[in-house]
Amino acid sequence: MQIEHKNELENHARLLVKCPDKPGIVSIVSTFLFKHNANIIESNQYSSDPENGTFFIRIEFHCDNLKDKQTMMENDFEQIARDFDMDYKFFYLNSRQRSAIFCSKELHCLLELLWEWQNGDLETEIALVISNHENARTIVESYGIPFYYLPANKEIRKEVEAEQIKLLEEYQVDLLILARYMQILTPDFVDHFENRIINIHHSFLPAFIGANPYERAHRRGVKLIGATSHYVTNELDEGPIIEQDVERVDHRNDVVTLKKIGRQIERRVLTKAVKWHLENRIIVEGNKTIVFH
Amino acid sequence: MQIEHKNELENHARLLVKCPDKPGIVSIVSTFLFKHNANIIESNQYSSDPENGTFFIRIEFHCDNLKDKQTMMENDFEQIARDFDMDYKFFYLNSRQRSAIFCSKELHCLLELLWEWQNGDLETEIALVISNHENARTIVESYGIPFYYLPANKEIRKEVEAEQIKLLEEYQVDLLILARYMQILTPDFVDHFENRIINIHHSFLPAFIGANPYERAHRRGVKLIGATSHYVTNELDEGPIIEQDVERVDHRNDVVTLKKIGRQIERRVLTKAVKWHLENRIIVEGNKTIVFH
Amino acid sequence: MQIEHKNELENHARLLVKCPDKPGIVSIVSTFLFKHNANIIESNQYSSDPENGTFFIRIEFHCDNLKDKQTMMENDFEQIARDFDMDYKFFYLNSRQRSAIFCSKELHCLLELLWEWQNGDLETEIALVISNHENARTIVESYGIPFYYLPANKEIRKEVEAEQIKLLEEYQVDLLILARYMQILTPDFVDHFENRIINIHHSFLPAFIGANPYERAHRRGVKLIGATSHYVTNELDEGPIIEQDVERVDHRNDVVTLKKIGRQIERRVLTKAVKWHLENRIIVEGNKTIVFH
Amino acid sequence: MQIEHKNELENHARLLVKCPDKPGIVSIVSTFLFKHNANIIESNQYSSDPENGTFFIRIEFHCDNLKDKQTMMENDFEQIARDFDMDYKFFYLNSRQRSAIFCSKELHCLLELLWEWQNGDLETEIALVISNHENARTIVESYGIPFYYLPANKEIRKEVEAEQIKLLEEYQVDLLILARYMQILTPDFVDHFENRIINIHHSFLPAFIGANPYERAHRRGVKLIGATSHYVTNELDEGPIIEQDVERVDHRNDVVTLKKIGRQIERRVLTKAVKWHLENRIIVEGNKTIVFH
Repeated sequence: MQIEHKNELENHARLLVKCPDKPGIVSIVSTFLFKHNANIIESNQYSSDPENGTFFIRIEFHCDNLKDKQTMMENDFEQIARDFDMDYKFFYLNSRQRSAIFCSKELHCLLELLWEWQNGDLETEIALVISNHENARTIVESYGIPFYYLPANKEIRKEVEAEQIKLLEEYQVDLLILARYMQILTPDFVDHFENRIINIHHSFLPAFIGANPYERAHRRGVKLIGATSHYVTNELDEGPIIEQDVERVDHRNDVVTLKKIGRQIERRVLTKAVKWHLENRIIVEGNKTIVFH
Repeated sequence: MQIEHKNELENHARLLVKCPDKPGIVSIVSTFLFKHNANIIESNQYSSDPENGTFFIRIEFHCDNLKDKQTMMENDFEQIARDFDMDYKFFYLNSRQRSAIFCSKELHCLLELLWEWQNGDLETEIALVISNHENARTIVESYGIPFYYLPANKEIRKEVEAEQIKLLEEYQVDLLILARYMQILTPDFVDHFENRIINIHHSFLPAFIGANPYERAHRRGVKLIGATSHYVTNELDEGPIIEQDVERVDHRNDVVTLKKIGRQIERRVLTKAVKWHLENRIIVEGNKTIVFH
Repeated sequence: MQIEHKNELENHARLLVKCPDKPGIVSIVSTFLFKHNANIIESNQYSSDPENGTFFIRIEFHCDNLKDKQTMMENDFEQIARDFDMDYKFFYLNSRQRSAIFCSKELHCLLELLWEWQNGDLETEIALVISNHENARTIVESYGIPFYYLPANKEIRKEVEAEQIKLLEEYQVDLLILARYMQILTPDFVDHFENRIINIHHSFLPAFIGANPYERAHRRGVKLIGATSHYVTNELDEGPIIEQDVERVDHRNDVVTLKKIGRQIERRVLTKAVKWHLENRIIVEGNKTIVFH
Repeated sequence: MQIEHKNELENHARLLVKCPDKPGIVSIVSTFLFKHNANIIESNQYSSDPENGTFFIRIEFHCDNLKDKQTMMENDFEQIARDFDMDYKFFYLNSRQRSAIFCSKELHCLLELLWEWQNGDLETEIALVISNHENARTIVESYGIPFYYLPANKEIRKEVEAEQIKLLEEYQVDLLILARYMQILTPDFVDHFENRIINIHHSFLPAFIGANPYERAHRRGVKLIGATSHYVTNELDEGPIIEQDVERVDHRNDVVTLKKIGRQIERRVLTKAVKWHLENRIIVEGNKTIVFH
């Protein structure tokens, strides 16, 4: 369901909870919402194991005059959270998350994101785009989005990252999207944005970790190629996987063709992951994701 | 999750509810279960519209000494059901549903069902198999399942159906699976088993309703062929769709090849539908299904 | 394989042949090419039936100094064509086909085509875009492509089509692409461009022929939605199918969501069909297509 | 197309050729066949590079009185093969290839193969089944196929392989199918059957090479699981890939469920690979396969 009217957004929120599984959680949370006159729109839950496992729930709810009540609700929820040892967060749809996109020369993922965003299908403000190439400037600025050209390479990594972080903070960015950004990020940088950097890797991980996956896929003679979107951690291509997809290929496809086919997979896989993140559908648990869709 | 141990099954149940959507349903139902010391294992819900729509929920729960408590629970739930104007049903996993399979000459769907059942992946007793051909007898009887050969055609339909109904009642059948049974059932017969007959149609409905779908798919030159499992109603191939799938074909595939490819689709689509029905994952609403999977 | 260098294109051609199947066709055609120093790059063939069927072949070949030799080759081929009763055509890659795109308000298919074309993945000049709405003008003109706004409706159909045909002739258009153009074309118009108009229909034909397929798919409760690209004939949505694809949907998806999902299918299905047409990979036979890919 | 009548099979053959690419190959081969009154039924070709690449062709042809002519044809072809430096082989459909199946405890791949074979969809005689467990005996023998129980483990590998080879030679086996056979084969064994052992690995290679791929897929949190059929070489899971496929999974699927889903992929991927091998559709080139389908 798409929420379209501004005043609907104002009364719309999501609650994400993670806690040790034990009886009564759904009862207490749903009763809490009911008592605050909140109406559940959508609810998804998952338990890693009903006996001593971890319980996860995502509830999307509507509540008249939410703005006036949200502080009180959060205060009231505190006690429940303590009793059940919950990690939790309320997300309010009246304040949109702010995203930054990093890209390099290849623009298919950037274009797909801009397109979906323009259609109103991504719940975000695109605050800025940063690239180590100039070729995205025209298209980005045509959407009225600030564009920054920051050349990047191994030698000047530290300095560039300092500038990038400055910009991301200045623009108050919540989510960083690596739309085929071809530079490695340092652990320092990654630590600034834990579980808030989404990358697209051009293979079905864990196959072909690292550079040149299409060349290596071609050399290995695989019959499927794929792409993987994941949160960035400090181990290359090892972060929690959000989404993957593949397409069929055959012996006739050279590397150039694999890349063409791959671009179609990459743009749709990255866009899905970003969309789900923005809709608060993803919970990271260890090195895995729970995606409520 | 698969429930494997007999004593786990004994304490395992499902509750399906359908009612007008209004605030508080999840709260009251989950609190009810909590008070009866039932632990929610899995829960899925859907609302056709949070404002004046219809609300559906499927809850799978575990409860120690369920057998002793189930009458009391059902009695206690009566009041809630009245207050919220609920259609509902409790399903207990200690009593397995009983299925009958009807087939004709082509046995791929029957074989797939027997195979999955033998693996323990279908929550059912296969009570009997009825066919208007003899060729399934050996395989069916090798599994220790009663096999009945009842010749069938237009002229003797009424008599045959009377015999079939007699057998289905005698064997206390809950679910009837038409595994490529090539005879039409009369409205009388269908009315006996509302939303309890699952058919596999060899096309992606609503394309190619009726006879010879592969021949017609070939003539039309489609690039995908499919299969559809649905509940049988009295309008041919118009019942609520449970599952569909397709495979890619091309100009080189003659009708014989389409049928071969189609058989692979049919057997997996029918088996999924049957599995979901037996796991009480399907709610029929109007001419559509809600499938919680 | 992509042909990139201008001088390679000059010596590159394709031969498409259709004739009654009988022994010796491949021998005579390949020997003809060999004698003219043409090197076969790719060859695909199909026979509807080796006994009294129809034989189809597509050969892509390279030949030094093709420009100087092509008249002679065509003359020499005449005799073979007569002997084997062939329908045939040589296509030379040095002269690109010219395309027109018709669109209405929804631009996703147009944008995908422009994008692929800009990447060099469509072998065509986009000669002009015609729309019955103004909203595509900015983007189309930003690519340097002429844009014509021609309002259209039932009452003025004849006059509008006359103008459209005038423009298509003026721009010497070989292929007309209907990229979600929401007006019906008259038989007169269609006859002008036999097997040269490609449409995208937003359902997996033959399901949901005609208007509002997503609404009808939603009402029917299908579990897959699709799109179909086909050549336009004078029977609505009944022309030869070129490509189809589907995506999985479920009970939670309302019509708005189906349309969103559908747009992703439509744009990739239409683009594939256009690409194959431009690469001379499609032979229309009766109401079906042979696609050599 | 399926060849059904015995006397059709007698006059049916396939020619597979691999040679350095240069102009005139198709011409000379097709003219050769035409002169011997052979009618081409199906033809597929591929060139790794029209300039100095390798050329591959598979031709399926029909020829009256083939039995009387085949020695002469082969002799006549010798000269062409020398001129073009060809690797080639004629395959005659009147002599069916003989297959052996090795399996262990899990029988889903074996059952699928038996089923397809019984339907007439595998061009082979299943000469024998060898297992290191007894549980397949009943089903195998019910088809009239000899079953051998040969216990196997690391300690007795050499002796067991000696017995296996003896049996495979005694039964004149052309193709060995590893249908989830859970023992490693020694290099000596593998060398006996170069490009004639087909294995099914339960992951989308090169991901999860080696043991316990489903456990590792679960741990990594992938969103797709797959299976790969490949020819066995002496590097574990590194042989030429024939076919791969995947299915979508999510966070709710435990390892047991992944294995269930995986079994469906494994059986269809292995069966396709075996079918293509038997139809002489596969050419191994280096560590990759060309599959003409």
